[in-house]
Amino acid sequence: MEGISKQALEGVKIIDLATAAAAPWIATFMADFGADVIKVEKPKEGDPIRGWGEQRDGIPLFWQAISRGKKSITLDLRKEKGKELLLELVKETDILIENFRPGKLESWGLAPEVLHEVNPRLIIMRVSGFGQYGPYSSKPGFGTLAEAMSGFAYTTGFPDGPPTLPALPLGDGITGIFGAFGVMVALYARDVQKMDKGQVLDLALYEPILRLLEGNTVDFDQLGLIRGRSGNRLPQTSPRNAYKTVDGEWIAISGSTPSTAIRVFKAIGQEHLLNDPRFKDNRARLKYAEDLDKIISEWVSQHTQKEAVQIFESFEVAVAPIYSVKDVFEDLHFNARETIIKIPSEELGEVALNNVIPKMSLTPGKIKSAAPSLGKHNQEVYKKIGLTDEQLSQLIEEGII
Amino acid sequence: MEGISKQALEGVKIIDLATAAAAPWIATFMADFGADVIKVEKPKEGDPIRGWGEQRDGIPLFWQAISRGKKSITLDLRKEKGKELLLELVKETDILIENFRPGKLESWGLAPEVLHEVNPRLIIMRVSGFGQYGPYSSKPGFGTLAEAMSGFAYTTGFPDGPPTLPALPLGDGITGIFGAFGVMVALYARDVQKMDKGQVLDLALYEPILRLLEGNTVDFDQLGLIRGRSGNRLPQTSPRNAYKTVDGEWIAISGSTPSTAIRVFKAIGQEHLLNDPRFKDNRARLKYAEDLDKIISEWVSQHTQKEAVQIFESFEVAVAPIYSVKDVFEDLHFNARETIIKIPSEELGEVALNNVIPKMSLTPGKIKSAAPSLGKHNQEVYKKIGLTDEQLSQLIEEGII
Repeated sequence: MEGISKQALEGVKIIDLATAAAAPWIATFMADFGADVIKVEKPKEGDPIRGWGEQRDGIPLFWQAISRGKKSITLDLRKEKGKELLLELVKETDILIENFRPGKLESWGLAPEVLHEVNPRLIIMRVSGFGQYGPYSSKPGFGTLAEAMSGFAYTTGFPDGPPTLPALPLGDGITGIFGAFGVMVALYARDVQKMDKGQVLDLALYEPILRLLEGNTVDFDQLGLIRGRSGNRLPQTSPRNAYKTVDGEWIAISGSTPSTAIRVFKAIGQEHLLNDPRFKDNRARLKYAEDLDKIISEWVSQHTQKEAVQIFESFEVAVAPIYSVKDVFEDLHFNARETIIKIPSEELGEVALNNVIPKMSLTPGKIKSAAPSLGKHNQEVYKKIGLTDEQLSQLIEEGII
Repeated sequence: MEGISKQALEGVKIIDLATAAAAPWIATFMADFGADVIKVEKPKEGDPIRGWGEQRDGIPLFWQAISRGKKSITLDLRKEKGKELLLELVKETDILIENFRPGKLESWGLAPEVLHEVNPRLIIMRVSGFGQYGPYSSKPGFGTLAEAMSGFAYTTGFPDGPPTLPALPLGDGITGIFGAFGVMVALYARDVQKMDKGQVLDLALYEPILRLLEGNTVDFDQLGLIRGRSGNRLPQTSPRNAYKTVDGEWIAISGSTPSTAIRVFKAIGQEHLLNDPRFKDNRARLKYAEDLDKIISEWVSQHTQKEAVQIFESFEVAVAPIYSVKDVFEDLHFNARETIIKIPSEELGEVALNNVIPKMSLTPGKIKSAAPSLGKHNQEVYKKIGLTDEQLSQLIEEGII
């Protein structure tokens, strides 16, 4: 069973020129399944992500998550010799990922046509705030702007409160995984459909999160419906909300099945509510959602989170505790599935990271290595394209690597 | 250039047995690039998604988005003859997608081993609330529960308010695209790495959204940090918030670059604030974020959304209007990129849907067709596996299709 010890993306070579969160994530997701990723960083400064968020003893932490399994080399693309080296590397590369402002790569003489001249099979994944063309294409792109313009913020939060932005790089994350899917589609076209040619992929940061809001698109188009904020309720089903427990924690109840309400009423010992015209069916419950939530809240407020979850679960209500990151670490099931695993790290001793998903039976992914220190793989990578120790020293001196 | 008129996933055959939102989305994303998707629905009732959300003249609207480009057949898997027909279809299939409660498929005699017996090359994508194994695996799975247990709700919203759930099927959407990526990785392993074998993929609804929160994982592991809710601020950079305009609209400002604050101060004509010790660098601004937001809010509250965006943009601040779905439809740039396009629909005349992403230069995706009516492709699909008109009538009579 020779093939089976292989990783799914073994031998797939990626150059990751990107920063901010979306585009580098594409390479991370692919490294998880065995792709060979070379992260290109600016000499001395390194990737700006190294400066993001929290640090421990000067070691950046978000960097650990997003750069796991990658190799790091330094290279200044603004210098002539830097460009030459990149083109040399591109010859042996399947995928190049970049997220410079549209036109930047071209201004350096590294347009897709130039890259395709040295390697016609190269897949070029371009991520940007607003895409490679269109009136806003030269505007800077950030996840927050995508979250604002997609309609996410407008519909998230409470009717009497402000629009709500996510507290994580959500627009970036969704773009990262959409981009990884796109790259795989292009690889399939090249290698299986025998196109034998690379191509250019154009993905704007606002597009993936907007795609997931497509339910609103059809509703507006067909009914003129402009959905606003409905807090933790949903416009489709009731009950659905977050309820506070006596120990100051919260639980969430999902009402996506018609029998949810019946089960909830049984669980709180108030089956008679089924005969109440306000709660007799989903349409009625939506109209009287406030009344219904008041009844549920009152019951929940007299139980601990653990009790409430247990009781609702025994009645097969779709219920869940609202978890902090600490709860995530301590959850029995998450531990059984190794949702979070520890890997060795030169810099931190050991570091906990989210495990590879999905789980695959024949070619399971794995985290190859901890995030690299700056330029850790200069020797390894540059020697493969024929550079000598002397040449490397020279390049360092000139600030090219 | 024969190959170039081909779609990237042309000839890839998918059976979509799934419902709820995550798993069917996997097939939708792949149909966008040319995969041939057969959606299997319960006779008469059809997919429960047909009952979700809004309708126009009895035509379900969310269904239009999630079932575009698919064929619909009816088939009752609970009946012996139904199982036989499924196994017949599986012989000619590359990918089977399912999201039954773990163990359900097995209880019907349709376990992966049985499917692999008739087609060893089959890729089986299994989506479930909590995965195929682990103590919670038999619990029901809904997006809301994933959003609650991943830490999303705990960190979204305001410090003095409740945890905030998203107003869209977010956990489902992220799972859908992660699943599509996983399927492509498995296809690559099978067809390019010459494994020549299918495999089983196991994806739990809580895993993908938790993966995007991985920054919190590392911070907790290394520093014991339990991040709570910080409203529209971010713990990493300031300013970042949503601000209300004089016309009752909102704008968002992203502070992910160090120069943002300088540009904001210039835009609001208060450059002197740079000398204020409270705002001199990002660390100081984070500490005095409330003061800073007050100053920005005051300025924004005197301008319309349009004015505020224009002025901030002229100073290169990362700013965006907070859009409703109506604004999305009217945006100049989105229109130029055809972010939303109209396609013909038998049932609705025409329907607006979110366009295929990413944009690919050589093998662009396209929406093949509008969502199908129930059983629309019974004739086409079943005749291909050799059934006659008589046999089809018989199957309908017996309630098998």
